Amino acid sequence: MYEGVVQDLIDELGRLPGVGPKGAQRIAFHLLSADPDEVTRLADALVQVREKVSFCQECGNVAEGERCRICLDPRRDPGLICVVEQSQDVAAIERTREFRGRYHVLGGAINPIGGVGPDDLRVRELVARLADGQVQEVILATDPNLEGEATATYLARLLVPYEGVRVSRLASGLPVGGDLEYADEVTLGRAFEGRRLLSG
Amino acid sequence: MYEGVVQDLIDELGRLPGVGPKGAQRIAFHLLSADPDEVTRLADALVQVREKVSFCQECGNVAEGERCRICLDPRRDPGLICVVEQSQDVAAIERTREFRGRYHVLGGAINPIGGVGPDDLRVRELVARLADGQVQEVILATDPNLEGEATATYLARLLVPYEGVRVSRLASGLPVGGDLEYADEVTLGRAFEGRRLLSG
Repeated sequence: MYEGVVQDLIDELGRLPGVGPKGAQRIAFHLLSADPDEVTRLADALVQVREKVSFCQECGNVAEGERCRICLDPRRDPGLICVVEQSQDVAAIERTREFRGRYHVLGGAINPIGGVGPDDLRVRELVARLADGQVQEVILATDPNLEGEATATYLARLLVPYEGVRVSRLASGLPVGGDLEYADEVTLGRAFEGRRLLSG
Repeated sequence: MYEGVVQDLIDELGRLPGVGPKGAQRIAFHLLSADPDEVTRLADALVQVREKVSFCQECGNVAEGERCRICLDPRRDPGLICVVEQSQDVAAIERTREFRGRYHVLGGAINPIGGVGPDDLRVRELVARLADGQVQEVILATDPNLEGEATATYLARLLVPYEGVRVSRLASGLPVGGDLEYADEVTLGRAFEGRRLLSG
């Protein structure tokens, strides 16, 4: 429909997640009339990411180099490992500023229907990190859905033999700012189950 | 939040129209785990577009070179000019395969509130194309909204002195496949106004 290179760009943009054909066209025409520097910066950012970014050999998080920023930070407690499904979850937890330990990125969750088993995740690498006896607690922060719960249950069982390592799971309950009336029954059930004593 | 170059990419992606912060993050992580060739192709497409694509000196459509594909095509009728707001509109009309004339891309529509007047659009260039007396009809295909109608009205008046040049406007009415019950009153009013005689 368009001149060759414009159509090429629309096609490439249309392959990105969450960008449909209309969105790809809109972005392409935005870039055509945008400051040429903006296009250059985007192209450079892509090249840089491809060349420089890899995954941390320790925790599996995105990293520039062999170790990620968090694993390289000596102020982060190596006795505390928070297990998450993906790097985006690391970013979400970092935004809370609540957690001062380290992470372990599994690269997904167990999903038998999708053909993802423990061997497809960085489970062996997690177990290897417990070998030196430094880790005191593993916090399972996989998603509170079917796959995430299955993964947490699997890991909790797997880590039973490691004495001195506590295994915990993030609390489920009502989201802050949410409305009890509109909570689904599973979440509300969990909120009851995990209720905290305020007095007495 | 992320390592330098990943955050750079998220920032650049987040500047694109229709891509929010979450979408930018999703695209960035998709590219991180994607085939490196895909990232290269996208970066190349951006560089190519920046280097090769410009605007047709004749009609203002996107072009690789001085003239666009349509202006270079000798089979396209030079006596018929379809005036549109932007290149995307050219693509939309080309998809209908109804129109065998040429185009004129204004680069927007008159919008006094947004500070866009006739001098900000390629109006002078349109008038210049009428000078050689070859053009028989100018079809005003600006958007059927306030700005597009204002632009069409302005151009229709401007082109009155050009004898031998018919000026027409795309029909307004019920969209094909639409539902009369749900049509807005302005569209329905236009559909009555523009009704066609089927017999008698």
